[in-house]
Amino acid sequence: MITLFDLVFSGDRRPSPFCWRTKLALRHKGLDYVTEPVGFCDKDKLAFAGSTTVPVIRDDSHGGRAVRDSWQIALYLDEAYPAQPLFASAAERSFARFVNGWADTTVHVALFPLVVADLHAQARPQDQAYFRESREKRLGTTLESAQQAARETRLPVWRGTLEPLRRQLAAQPFLSGDAPAYPDYIVAGTFLWPRTVSPLALLEADDPVNGWLDRMLDLFDGMGRKAPTAAG
Amino acid sequence: MITLFDLVFSGDRRPSPFCWRTKLALRHKGLDYVTEPVGFCDKDKLAFAGSTTVPVIRDDSHGGRAVRDSWQIALYLDEAYPAQPLFASAAERSFARFVNGWADTTVHVALFPLVVADLHAQARPQDQAYFRESREKRLGTTLESAQQAARETRLPVWRGTLEPLRRQLAAQPFLSGDAPAYPDYIVAGTFLWPRTVSPLALLEADDPVNGWLDRMLDLFDGMGRKAPTAAG
Repeated sequence: MITLFDLVFSGDRRPSPFCWRTKLALRHKGLDYVTEPVGFCDKDKLAFAGSTTVPVIRDDSHGGRAVRDSWQIALYLDEAYPAQPLFASAAERSFARFVNGWADTTVHVALFPLVVADLHAQARPQDQAYFRESREKRLGTTLESAQQAARETRLPVWRGTLEPLRRQLAAQPFLSGDAPAYPDYIVAGTFLWPRTVSPLALLEADDPVNGWLDRMLDLFDGMGRKAPTAAG
Repeated sequence: MITLFDLVFSGDRRPSPFCWRTKLALRHKGLDYVTEPVGFCDKDKLAFAGSTTVPVIRDDSHGGRAVRDSWQIALYLDEAYPAQPLFASAAERSFARFVNGWADTTVHVALFPLVVADLHAQARPQDQAYFRESREKRLGTTLESAQQAARETRLPVWRGTLEPLRRQLAAQPFLSGDAPAYPDYIVAGTFLWPRTVSPLALLEADDPVNGWLDRMLDLFDGMGRKAPTAAG
């Protein structure tokens, strides 16, 4: 049995885009897991893995092996459980690693300020002070100012970062090809993150990304769709 | 024999990043080709292919078949000449298509204003008026103002767009994996474009992208390195 240490917000919301990558990867591989909720103030729960960030997994079928970082976890899962691979070839692994870097350094950077005050509002009460202080230091302003400024001017920038995804979806149903694979799980995690906390309409109604996102939310018995949203 | 209709600037410079994709793809596949230079004012040369943009190829070994657009040309070459494939699997093709969209919509958009006046200066004299008028309309200002403003404020933004490439290169020698492939050719074309016309240092000296670019310029008997640069 695998235990996933998963970021938790109020109402048992699970926003972490990085944890979503791991949850979707575990389901892709047909592996059972349980989650251990971790709030921003509970990070001592991750110390056994030498980590201060989620996701972390503990694999009790492999001597309690601890693995941290969603990308390292994906590589580990394919090594420890070769069936239903996440990466069936070096090309699939390279493609996924590239999308991983693109999401982290381009898409998330544009998205984060758009929902940062909503993230704060949905954090557990005991985590809010930590969240505010650490994120305001990073943003150089208050969460509320950063979010308002971003919504006034940066929504087109964020939507623009998705253009490579749109081009891909004009040619095939999933980012990865005819079927969803790890590149899709990465970007699905990107969308599940704001979906969990914010009512903001991140996409225009006629954006072709909507159809892909619907397909992603339906995967694995609708695990993404069933997850608690901003509305509860 | 394949004829590539290739954008030409003064001094027989060949800046088009899209034509570079095709030239590198032809060499990857070991296919001989000749180039037919096309300036901005010579676009009637492309009419036989129903195109107003380069690259276009005419394949006289296949009944003079005309193919336009670097991505369509890559797919055509693999179909018509299956040996030494550009895309040995659906995953390789998906990966390359994603990088194609990323380069076109993210990297080039950030790069173009940084070198737009230098591009103009190196266009053939008879093409400069067309280049200025069409690009100033797109930019909403003069080429010189756009370039100066971009260099004052947007160099870090352009460098930031390359972060997914840097992450990839931290794990493997080429964007595509252990060996260069079409994703690398796409981004090599991105760099050969300004290299042909501009002395601007686009990367910081310690950027790991430099080492990769050196390897790309060395490919195929140094075809990129030997091409005329801004300095001549």
